Amino acid sequence: MNTKLRQLVAGFDQNKIDALLITKDVNIRYLTGFAASDSWLLVCRGKVFYVTDFRYVLEAKKGLKGVAVKEYKKSIYAKLFELVEAMKAKRVGFDEQCFTVAQYKVLKKFCPSGVRLRAANNLVEKFREVKDVEEVRQIKSALNLHGKAYRFLRKVVKPGVSEREVLWKLEGFVKAKGEGFSFDPIIASGPNSCYPHAHVTDRKICQNEPVLIDIGMDINGYKSDLTRMFFLGRMAPLVRQVNAHVKESQRRAILRIKAGVAVAEVDKEARHYLAKQRLAKYFGHALGHGVGLEVHESPRLSQKSSAILKEGMVVTVEPAVYVPEQFGIRIEDMVLVTKNGCEILSDDID
Amino acid sequence: MNTKLRQLVAGFDQNKIDALLITKDVNIRYLTGFAASDSWLLVCRGKVFYVTDFRYVLEAKKGLKGVAVKEYKKSIYAKLFELVEAMKAKRVGFDEQCFTVAQYKVLKKFCPSGVRLRAANNLVEKFREVKDVEEVRQIKSALNLHGKAYRFLRKVVKPGVSEREVLWKLEGFVKAKGEGFSFDPIIASGPNSCYPHAHVTDRKICQNEPVLIDIGMDINGYKSDLTRMFFLGRMAPLVRQVNAHVKESQRRAILRIKAGVAVAEVDKEARHYLAKQRLAKYFGHALGHGVGLEVHESPRLSQKSSAILKEGMVVTVEPAVYVPEQFGIRIEDMVLVTKNGCEILSDDID
Repeated sequence: MNTKLRQLVAGFDQNKIDALLITKDVNIRYLTGFAASDSWLLVCRGKVFYVTDFRYVLEAKKGLKGVAVKEYKKSIYAKLFELVEAMKAKRVGFDEQCFTVAQYKVLKKFCPSGVRLRAANNLVEKFREVKDVEEVRQIKSALNLHGKAYRFLRKVVKPGVSEREVLWKLEGFVKAKGEGFSFDPIIASGPNSCYPHAHVTDRKICQNEPVLIDIGMDINGYKSDLTRMFFLGRMAPLVRQVNAHVKESQRRAILRIKAGVAVAEVDKEARHYLAKQRLAKYFGHALGHGVGLEVHESPRLSQKSSAILKEGMVVTVEPAVYVPEQFGIRIEDMVLVTKNGCEILSDDID
Repeated sequence: MNTKLRQLVAGFDQNKIDALLITKDVNIRYLTGFAASDSWLLVCRGKVFYVTDFRYVLEAKKGLKGVAVKEYKKSIYAKLFELVEAMKAKRVGFDEQCFTVAQYKVLKKFCPSGVRLRAANNLVEKFREVKDVEEVRQIKSALNLHGKAYRFLRKVVKPGVSEREVLWKLEGFVKAKGEGFSFDPIIASGPNSCYPHAHVTDRKICQNEPVLIDIGMDINGYKSDLTRMFFLGRMAPLVRQVNAHVKESQRRAILRIKAGVAVAEVDKEARHYLAKQRLAKYFGHALGHGVGLEVHESPRLSQKSSAILKEGMVVTVEPAVYVPEQFGIRIEDMVLVTKNGCEILSDDID
């Protein structure tokens, strides 16, 4: 067992389980390094099993070290509990967020008498919040490409070019590097930028309007997520003002970030500043979120969250102001939480 | 209410519900024509509601006709039951496959006394199985592009070119048409083709080996899904033989297809033929699946299924033989089930 699996097993007593069933691909990848699909990982105290079918068994046997690959023929549920019984595990943890009501019914049906299913939610996600040195290196390498992509875009985004044309050129650029996106790029020009999750359209970019570009890279599963504003020509005074305020709210929020601080405090800092400018009502989402193997992961930087920042977390800070039908400004950076503050990982990306 | 929504409501009595909650994007799109995300549709007898948040409310109001758009501020669950109570619905159907155990707990918590939650699974999926004229037109237009993509690939796939280079060129071709893929393309050369769901690698394609290319297009949400074999140079006798047998098994299966026939019969036809050639053990998956707004949808052409073919269904027929470590042959076409047989929608695509 590797360190991550050992850490996980060390928490079994506290969670009152003898085994943990993991069905989420990204959690399996985190624990084993293997890019799983349609397969389950059963972590027992002494042994780890990867339960898969005919389609993936050859790849799995090649790719997984220290994990027993088990092929099921008819039912993954039947094979699972066969292994649970062989390992004499009595309490099997599963994540209530990873089973639908329909799947849970099947799970219960197959569960032998003498074995208990116990809700054990977010166990792997909790570990994933704090990144180790290697993970930070992976995220930095996604950001490295990200910086190049924005430099490329500075040359491409011009009046007369459509949002979709920008997208194609960006795709060409990223694919030529052999890499991919962590989510569908948002390229929102002029009034389209007032939609927080705008879809790319055929609208041609005009002179004297803002363009919001929110993109993310994916290298070896690790993601980046940043938003930059592109200002073409002269901006209306309101756009300039709002931009300055969003920037300042971000600056203030980032200054609050350090290990031990409540995420709600950080969100409040940005929101409070925007409220003073009478702009808070135009900022309808949370301030940020963790980034790692998923582009949105725990912790969420939200007023409603009781989470506390820890050293090694990587989070976005993305205050925004969306003026309906007119324009939107969002500025999004990624920071690494440190003992005494934070490192802005995207600081040199324009 | 449009025809699709009216048909759905007409089934409420039989399902013992007064309202139906729909949370799956693709089902909302099917019923309303609006490309939903992170939002819920509540279908009541007299009225339909789209429950969404700040991020999507402007787009939804513009894009949805005959549907009341309701914005929630704090909880989508609270807003949902507010509407349920206003409409005096007593029995609310939900799909057990669309709620996780964790979400279902929240749903139950918010459900007011006097309102009952009832499992109502696959109601929209059942309607989606049978395509109307407009849907078939959409699928044909995806297949039209698909044919062009394969013609393009016939020029691109050559010895010395890597799988990834083929992918990039294909992506460039499809994106230049302004369209996208319905799933990550499979381009599997030589021994890589023995993995049914192979990932694209940097392997260079060699002379005298088969290349399996399984791709799908997506136009306005409607999908295509086909597999073609590319043979470069001279094939080993075994490859040629297996290819001929897979082709023959497909031909026989397609001959069995018509409205009223059990899908299990069609699967059996192909599998039985392969068994006679002692190849059935190398064919580990079902014979096919429905295609529409999802690339894999109901019905599944499987031995285990009790489904019956209906006029207007669009399904793939994809027998295959995977010889471990050596090579794989899969041939996949799409057919439209008719009263007296079927139309092979991809018949002219080489």
